[in-house]
Amino acid sequence: MKVALLGCGVVGSQVIRLMHEQAGDLAARVGAPLELAGVAVRRLGRKRDVDVDPALFTTDAEALVARDDVDVVIEVIGGIEPARSLIVSALSKGKSVVTANKALLAEDGATLHEAARAGNGDLYFEASVAGAIPLLRPLRESLAGDHVKRVLGIVNGTTNYILDKMDSTGASFTDALEEAQTLGYAEADPTADVEGFDAAAKAAILAGLAFHSRVPAADVHREGITEITATDVASAKAMGYVIKLLAICARSDDGRSFGVRVHPAMIPRTHPLAGVREAYNAVFVEAESAGQLMFYGKGAGGAPTASAVLGDLVAVGRNRLAGTRGPEESTYADLSVHPMGETVTRCHVALDVADKPGVLARVAELFAKHDVSIQTVRQEGHGDDAQLVIVTHRATDAALSATMEGLRELDIVRAVASVMRVEGDD
Amino acid sequence: MKVALLGCGVVGSQVIRLMHEQAGDLAARVGAPLELAGVAVRRLGRKRDVDVDPALFTTDAEALVARDDVDVVIEVIGGIEPARSLIVSALSKGKSVVTANKALLAEDGATLHEAARAGNGDLYFEASVAGAIPLLRPLRESLAGDHVKRVLGIVNGTTNYILDKMDSTGASFTDALEEAQTLGYAEADPTADVEGFDAAAKAAILAGLAFHSRVPAADVHREGITEITATDVASAKAMGYVIKLLAICARSDDGRSFGVRVHPAMIPRTHPLAGVREAYNAVFVEAESAGQLMFYGKGAGGAPTASAVLGDLVAVGRNRLAGTRGPEESTYADLSVHPMGETVTRCHVALDVADKPGVLARVAELFAKHDVSIQTVRQEGHGDDAQLVIVTHRATDAALSATMEGLRELDIVRAVASVMRVEGDD
Repeated sequence: MKVALLGCGVVGSQVIRLMHEQAGDLAARVGAPLELAGVAVRRLGRKRDVDVDPALFTTDAEALVARDDVDVVIEVIGGIEPARSLIVSALSKGKSVVTANKALLAEDGATLHEAARAGNGDLYFEASVAGAIPLLRPLRESLAGDHVKRVLGIVNGTTNYILDKMDSTGASFTDALEEAQTLGYAEADPTADVEGFDAAAKAAILAGLAFHSRVPAADVHREGITEITATDVASAKAMGYVIKLLAICARSDDGRSFGVRVHPAMIPRTHPLAGVREAYNAVFVEAESAGQLMFYGKGAGGAPTASAVLGDLVAVGRNRLAGTRGPEESTYADLSVHPMGETVTRCHVALDVADKPGVLARVAELFAKHDVSIQTVRQEGHGDDAQLVIVTHRATDAALSATMEGLRELDIVRAVASVMRVEGDD
Repeated sequence: MKVALLGCGVVGSQVIRLMHEQAGDLAARVGAPLELAGVAVRRLGRKRDVDVDPALFTTDAEALVARDDVDVVIEVIGGIEPARSLIVSALSKGKSVVTANKALLAEDGATLHEAARAGNGDLYFEASVAGAIPLLRPLRESLAGDHVKRVLGIVNGTTNYILDKMDSTGASFTDALEEAQTLGYAEADPTADVEGFDAAAKAAILAGLAFHSRVPAADVHREGITEITATDVASAKAMGYVIKLLAICARSDDGRSFGVRVHPAMIPRTHPLAGVREAYNAVFVEAESAGQLMFYGKGAGGAPTASAVLGDLVAVGRNRLAGTRGPEESTYADLSVHPMGETVTRCHVALDVADKPGVLARVAELFAKHDVSIQTVRQEGHGDDAQLVIVTHRATDAALSATMEGLRELDIVRAVASVMRVEGDD
């Protein structure tokens, strides 16, 4: 079985190493030896830390993918183009593809799945979400006889590292980001991570699998962590909460639609996700019969991601030998994604207020007007430092937003100091 | 696609309910409607809480399994016979089988796998270990490109419930067992759970998948939890540890053999498995590239187990429609199981000793003689209450056992009050 590798970076070089080191095991598990047919790179001659015949390197990825003797193509270039064209080209020629490309799958998964169907090949992508953690296969196969209600997880290691540092050391966002960059947990341009784009792409993939529907990346509500201050983190801590960037895919109560969102949220310190430290990932899946399941592990890195890629490689290799394909994309349910406003959530709000009688009554009246019920309210400080800290019961995001808007206009409210959603304690 | 169900107890009745309630979803996911062809029970006429045509019930399981129109057989009777004969009969007629029967798989998996191969059908058994937690499929497929080093987990909910109660309330084993029985977490005859037989069967299945070898149930070293006292639990707690019944499958350092064992062990309270409460299950998998993964969820119960059964049903249904089979049993590595004596572990020992000079020197000398290195030693109490509490470094179980034997013969040791292995802090 001949394998073409597109990309030889952090993940690609580990794929090469492991294909070499584990050749015997992989052959036994697939039922045939795997042979590296070529490695497409952007520049030849660059010094690479891989033990591979230099003749295998090529800059002509399109020609490599088109070779008749290539059975499986592994794509670890990332990004939209040329990855999409290369994958479609490979699939349309009947080859199977293993990819770790979450951005492309979220952006244009339909095109890839269509090409796989047309070419009668496999498209596997376990490595695209949560690195080495087996998550897509369990959702797609193990839970195929169940009814998934909610997926809630930490799927971006960079932001978890930053938030964990802020929580454990009291560091500011900027300082924690800088440390993450120094340690290689964050890239020089951290936008994709800290603004939630990476997590949003993964959320779209997870929601599609969980709810058997197609989820356009644009339908994912996305908020990053750049606005989170050391004060937010400290005040969450004081209340027994920790702030995490969560990806949440949840069916509506009537089951006819679902929401997909990525945003920072406060979760109780007793919640299992609260204990997920550093750059680790963890995902909760709640299904009607199975109940709550959790999956935990390393969400990124060369070797962990390569482990997921090779697991897929063994699977598509077996399928090809058996003359069959794995399960296709399942979108029969065709549920719609409801707008963020319809999402039901809870809110933690800190208000700088004038310290005079009647303030709480006016604030409470405004919440009531928007049908948002208050769970707890606490006054802190006095005089110019007076602050009301309010935690709401569950309400639609639209009602919560309208309430925040109204609060900003109240003359007795000097400032809405912070607003944060609360998850994980229902 | 016609499905025969063998058994209509806690799991079987949930399978019937879910096949009915989720008929539309299951049909869409399989690609064809699933129809219940019959339900084999021991006695007809018994009142059952299932919504099913009474004409489907039969006491002639063998005839049901043999029917030409039956495609898939679900076995949830449990036990060795008649389950084995029925499964073999179904497989040899080319049908696919989904089973939750850990005891049978551990006892005689080879016969079942052989029958599946000969009949060209599928044998799926995700529900046999850790109920709804997707664990076998991740081991067998997601990690097929990796090198599993160790599987360490809590795979029996009954014993975890008992030990958790003992830890949180200080109850004795007998009282905690009684409470578990009252709540339905333990059976009237709790032997299979508290003596570790259930966990040992699961350990054999996990080790087989993790190490691509056949693991006879008899090769699993097994110790139960009946000897654990409230004092053991309290003294573990005082040291920052908690006692759990663990199933451990670990490759030897040279990779040529592995050990499989089930026994109570002390683990640090900071270990993620320490937080697994009540009847929950959780399993750590440590693989060379993927690193540490954890899977957590409900390990038993009607609906969770039925969820796993139905996931397998969808998979084998898809395979039949595609005219193919899932991955076969993988035993190519053919590693041997090493005896318990060769297993490397650590030990916590409490010794009632005479309170006089030179005791520690004599005890230390004995440890040294057996090449067991001491990590910490602490003397507690005085006079007749004097106790030495020793925690060792890693040593072979044989060396540790020989040391314990030697301690019992030392005149200055009045009694070896407790011996417990320590895991999870290396």
